[in-house]
Amino acid sequence: MIHFGGDYNPEQWPESVWASDIELMLEAGVNLVTVGVFSWSRLEPRPGEFDFGWLDQVLDLLHAAGIGVCLATPTASPPPWFTRQNPHSMPINRDGVRLTHGSRDTYCVNAPAYQAACLSIVGELAARYSPQLWHVHNEYGTTCYCDFCAAAFRRWLSARYGDEATLNDVWSTDFWSQRVTSWEEVLPPRATQYLGNPAHLLDYRRFVSDAMLEHYRSQRALLSGAPVTTNFALGGWVPVDHARWSREVDIVAIDDYPATLSDRAFAADLARGWARDGRWMLMEHAPSASARAVAEPYLARGASGICYFQWRASRGGAEQWHPAMVPHEGPDSPVFREIAALGAALRDRSPVTVTATIALLYDEETMWALQAPHLPARELDYDATVRRWHRALDGPIDVLPPTAPLAGYDLVVVPSLYLMPADVHRALRDYVRDGGTLVLTAGSGQVDEHCRVTPGALDDLIGARPLDVTADVLENRYGAGTVFYTTAADPAPTLAAAAVQARGATAQPLGGPAQAVGGTV
Amino acid sequence: MIHFGGDYNPEQWPESVWASDIELMLEAGVNLVTVGVFSWSRLEPRPGEFDFGWLDQVLDLLHAAGIGVCLATPTASPPPWFTRQNPHSMPINRDGVRLTHGSRDTYCVNAPAYQAACLSIVGELAARYSPQLWHVHNEYGTTCYCDFCAAAFRRWLSARYGDEATLNDVWSTDFWSQRVTSWEEVLPPRATQYLGNPAHLLDYRRFVSDAMLEHYRSQRALLSGAPVTTNFALGGWVPVDHARWSREVDIVAIDDYPATLSDRAFAADLARGWARDGRWMLMEHAPSASARAVAEPYLARGASGICYFQWRASRGGAEQWHPAMVPHEGPDSPVFREIAALGAALRDRSPVTVTATIALLYDEETMWALQAPHLPARELDYDATVRRWHRALDGPIDVLPPTAPLAGYDLVVVPSLYLMPADVHRALRDYVRDGGTLVLTAGSGQVDEHCRVTPGALDDLIGARPLDVTADVLENRYGAGTVFYTTAADPAPTLAAAAVQARGATAQPLGGPAQAVGGTV
Amino acid sequence: MIHFGGDYNPEQWPESVWASDIELMLEAGVNLVTVGVFSWSRLEPRPGEFDFGWLDQVLDLLHAAGIGVCLATPTASPPPWFTRQNPHSMPINRDGVRLTHGSRDTYCVNAPAYQAACLSIVGELAARYSPQLWHVHNEYGTTCYCDFCAAAFRRWLSARYGDEATLNDVWSTDFWSQRVTSWEEVLPPRATQYLGNPAHLLDYRRFVSDAMLEHYRSQRALLSGAPVTTNFALGGWVPVDHARWSREVDIVAIDDYPATLSDRAFAADLARGWARDGRWMLMEHAPSASARAVAEPYLARGASGICYFQWRASRGGAEQWHPAMVPHEGPDSPVFREIAALGAALRDRSPVTVTATIALLYDEETMWALQAPHLPARELDYDATVRRWHRALDGPIDVLPPTAPLAGYDLVVVPSLYLMPADVHRALRDYVRDGGTLVLTAGSGQVDEHCRVTPGALDDLIGARPLDVTADVLENRYGAGTVFYTTAADPAPTLAAAAVQARGATAQPLGGPAQAVGGTV
Repeated sequence: MIHFGGDYNPEQWPESVWASDIELMLEAGVNLVTVGVFSWSRLEPRPGEFDFGWLDQVLDLLHAAGIGVCLATPTASPPPWFTRQNPHSMPINRDGVRLTHGSRDTYCVNAPAYQAACLSIVGELAARYSPQLWHVHNEYGTTCYCDFCAAAFRRWLSARYGDEATLNDVWSTDFWSQRVTSWEEVLPPRATQYLGNPAHLLDYRRFVSDAMLEHYRSQRALLSGAPVTTNFALGGWVPVDHARWSREVDIVAIDDYPATLSDRAFAADLARGWARDGRWMLMEHAPSASARAVAEPYLARGASGICYFQWRASRGGAEQWHPAMVPHEGPDSPVFREIAALGAALRDRSPVTVTATIALLYDEETMWALQAPHLPARELDYDATVRRWHRALDGPIDVLPPTAPLAGYDLVVVPSLYLMPADVHRALRDYVRDGGTLVLTAGSGQVDEHCRVTPGALDDLIGARPLDVTADVLENRYGAGTVFYTTAADPAPTLAAAAVQARGATAQPLGGPAQAVGGTV
Repeated sequence: MIHFGGDYNPEQWPESVWASDIELMLEAGVNLVTVGVFSWSRLEPRPGEFDFGWLDQVLDLLHAAGIGVCLATPTASPPPWFTRQNPHSMPINRDGVRLTHGSRDTYCVNAPAYQAACLSIVGELAARYSPQLWHVHNEYGTTCYCDFCAAAFRRWLSARYGDEATLNDVWSTDFWSQRVTSWEEVLPPRATQYLGNPAHLLDYRRFVSDAMLEHYRSQRALLSGAPVTTNFALGGWVPVDHARWSREVDIVAIDDYPATLSDRAFAADLARGWARDGRWMLMEHAPSASARAVAEPYLARGASGICYFQWRASRGGAEQWHPAMVPHEGPDSPVFREIAALGAALRDRSPVTVTATIALLYDEETMWALQAPHLPARELDYDATVRRWHRALDGPIDVLPPTAPLAGYDLVVVPSLYLMPADVHRALRDYVRDGGTLVLTAGSGQVDEHCRVTPGALDDLIGARPLDVTADVLENRYGAGTVFYTTAADPAPTLAAAAVQARGATAQPLGGPAQAVGGTV
Repeated sequence: MIHFGGDYNPEQWPESVWASDIELMLEAGVNLVTVGVFSWSRLEPRPGEFDFGWLDQVLDLLHAAGIGVCLATPTASPPPWFTRQNPHSMPINRDGVRLTHGSRDTYCVNAPAYQAACLSIVGELAARYSPQLWHVHNEYGTTCYCDFCAAAFRRWLSARYGDEATLNDVWSTDFWSQRVTSWEEVLPPRATQYLGNPAHLLDYRRFVSDAMLEHYRSQRALLSGAPVTTNFALGGWVPVDHARWSREVDIVAIDDYPATLSDRAFAADLARGWARDGRWMLMEHAPSASARAVAEPYLARGASGICYFQWRASRGGAEQWHPAMVPHEGPDSPVFREIAALGAALRDRSPVTVTATIALLYDEETMWALQAPHLPARELDYDATVRRWHRALDGPIDVLPPTAPLAGYDLVVVPSLYLMPADVHRALRDYVRDGGTLVLTAGSGQVDEHCRVTPGALDDLIGARPLDVTADVLENRYGAGTVFYTTAADPAPTLAAAAVQARGATAQPLGGPAQAVGGTV
């Protein structure tokens, strides 16, 4: 079965609309709806005063209709009363501006009062409901620079590095007189006079990711009886290391709002690469009159769910013009008819199991590191670069984090993997030594996990110093395998050469499904 | 008689220049000058210590020369001593930055100390002088987000909506968990994490407009013996609902700094449409060597005054390079000669009475609502759109607020009137039912006065659902009249079709002055 | 002898690298290195606790190798402990954001605690070391708007203008009601509602320059036994009046990071023009594989030193990708080989003495004044304009501040010298009256030193009112000399005409070295 549905926010509508909602869901073949994402101010209208009556009623209606429920904890949008009572739980941006209520996602995950309020409402939900799927929070992503964060950052650094001497070493603090003698001297990367320290900036993103992960875990500990997940937002601004988080969710779920079908294909391969077992679902995307065509790239790449934001278009609020399964024009609209046609088509389909012989490495830490100023290639858009290589490849592709096992792939493509810890160096060497075909693009391996330059670290694999390479493509035997190193922006010539090599290794067409081994890492 | 003159700031010049000023004013045919706009720090050099001697002298000189005086209250630019004594009266921007003295317009209209200081200096002026025209403040427009504003905003909301339940309803607060349980939870739309609530944003602009109007009224209550006005600044950033304010001034006065003659024509039609009696004046525009040509579009559209900023170019200060009637080069300059020629030409002219058979609707609340993010047409520049339709029309045009009476117009054109309360819907239906010809452009009527989507609200008038319209122009009989609905960017085809229809109704050329009925609303 | 070397930061490397550094320096012909610029957190790891051992060792190694030392005071980058202990010594930007540690240059020169900490560490260094050259601080340039600055600004204004009445006069405070009655009412130009006062803005830049100069002087007073300098950063944002500062350094030293060779030539002529005796050195530029070609424009224009940032590329930190003499690839790299070749070539060369017959005026106060909003030529980039005229001139050119003596030059070119005090007016008149040839471009002389418009001030020199000039080039006899006034963007036609005139005066080719008189002001 494939999950099909979307975010359902019945609290925005009078009770009279609910029955019609259920009827239309059945008409559209909806079998899973996400409820409660933005309901905190309804569920707990005053601190400690709960109102679950309306939610009971909605869940009963859904249950009676046989529609599954993905129940969200509402913690991404604390109510106005919370803001008023806890101004110090509001996030502060890098310029020191304290944000206030007026949108969504306005909170600091490191603020004790916010943490306590979250555990309280989540505890109530956990005690009361048994959904098919738990959905923690919504699109984690708020970065804060407040004093709670400063203290938590110091604890995180202390746990990671042990002592200040190590911190000074890995952060290269002797540059620009940044040597610390006490953890207390370390601050979040707040507004400063000039360029920040890249290691400092990168560790802060890692810390924010971990602080939010801790927030997620604290909720997950209260939930039982169903798988638990959260929906991943994608994008260069998102301070979440999804590869790491994927080990903490029962099913990988992504939200995807791209412009092109090839971008959808990339997101699908990426989500599958994050999942331990190849199972993943599309938790949000935009409904449209081309819903069937839009769903195909996801389905073909193993999606076990096709869900939208949102069921019924909101009359008011910031996203009143966001597309919806039931748009403002109502069910008698091209969008709803298309959604219903897709729902019908999905009834007989099952999630596809994908096996691939090509792996493409993608690393959010590299993306973050490449957002620093004063880099060798100042214009480099890492995400766009990887997507360009993805588009140039044929057949099933596993988009993988650099730490994933590579054995068994005919071809591993590594575009601009700027940041390479020692274990990634080792894994690439092992893969090639054992007969693999590796494509490395210029800019890869320039720094270690602390953003320290590592000159010469790839010279043996590349067969030359990157500095001395003048050819567009360089081919190099290494152990039983072959390395292609390219400085060209166009992937085609390199991939053509690599395909010949990889085909030779398996006597099969490149990227074909037949030779798949362990493709769904 | 047509008022002709400009801002006169004699305090910037030694007394020896004043006599020459008067002489040149007479040479240029100047009959009205605005005095005192930026004089607070001269009139009240220390708190409560007044110095009117120099102003007495200047007004005596003007009186002796027979030059009328438009006396301004100087409250738009409080002196440095005020800032120093009252830091909490300085405005705070949405990021929480407290602004300081260093320019002009740096005040919060809701700060009690500022209000008291204004009433004090205005009371002194009112007791002492009897000008021909009172000019309150200058170009109202400072938006503030401080705690005084927060409190006043809550009072304003409470008076408008009565209780929190109504607020929750009209603001659609169930989206993103924004439900409030107490007025105290409501804040100005300060910096927040993501998109704001459009109803919140729009109501804050309305509130700022009303708060400044209250400030204006408190001064007007002290002034007597002459008409009272203030000069309207135009532009998308100005938080003033001029249609509403126009009911509170004795004569509508605008400042206009556009790039083209057609923009001047639009501003003139707009000002006349705001005026109850067709009387309005151009309080500021830029002197130039084409002053006569520049004045014509205003004069042809009913201006009763042609005034400039400013009389004599300032040697220093932020606007030292602003054009002036007496420029830095002195009276022996093309600009002054042209100004004098215009002054001479105006001696024999009177304000024109304009009658028009075409109405074009323009609404500042729609302009504000369309500044929200995440709209269907994200690129839409409302002001530019209305101006494009204005340029495409021939003959006298009344640019009117949506609440103006429409009966009697041959043609009513409504470009992109996104925000439409129920009474505007009714007025448009009544107009067409009674035989009118209405042109509606795509994007009109999408939301009500609280920015809530109103699907289907115009379907009967349009004769179809907007969603289903594929034609560029749709013609539809409704009652005794006709509706044209267009999705085309180019107004020409629609206006050509509408003209045939409207001409048929009156058997007269479209837009000609003969059939005017109530054109000067 | 020509100084050849660069910034040497051995504290970023283990001791084991130092011996190799010395060896490579000798191989490259390095004879001067700048040590200690970013060493404060190493030299004083805790307040009052000093560690000079490593520096002693490094200086001993350099001494033994015969390599000269330019010892820097490390005050441009206070350590993290300083920030933690002295949050009020951190700079505040114009929006009121207090910056924090995380980069370099984060300090307020007017903060007493910062001043004290600087004098302490500099006193220690002065007592301990005897370098060949003292290098105070690094690239002065941090602008702050805090209350310490406000108080110091008031003292500076009071010393400059004596009383508030004079301030009101020179700042034209009657515009926009800015009249002050007490120094206490004056603030730094912090965030305000609208345009600032140009005289206020300009005086704040002068004050910041003087406040930093005072900071420099306080350090210089402690240093002895060697010449003292600081390295000038160039650029429109830099709040340093280098012409004024040049009188306070024993040798003018600049850092130059331009894009083209002609920009390097301009910087060299500019530095030489600032120097009292024609002696100047290039303290920083970027090492590259074209180092010899890059050095030539500087050497040909009198540089007595060719130095780089930095010796060895840093593994981490914000500028890890900044070019270096020993790049990440090590000494076996094209860059190091080129550097060594240049070092060898310099062994036999001496600084060139430049004599020029053409002077080009350049004024940082004009650059600052032209950064104000609402100017006649809003697009004017002063620096780019002067560089364009510099490129159009042949032969040796002295780029001079407007106060430099002009007698003896065949030709003086004055592009867009917006700000002209009375003494500059006088100097230009004297120069022409005595037979000189002067090229003035449009926009020159529009305001005095207080940004007050001075209409007519150049009419006699130009031979017409600028307003009335329609020709591209106007030629005008004045006394025994000739004035060319041009409104053309292209310098060529004017310079061709001026060359004929100037050649006639000397019967020599324009710009040739033979006729040089006092060219190295």
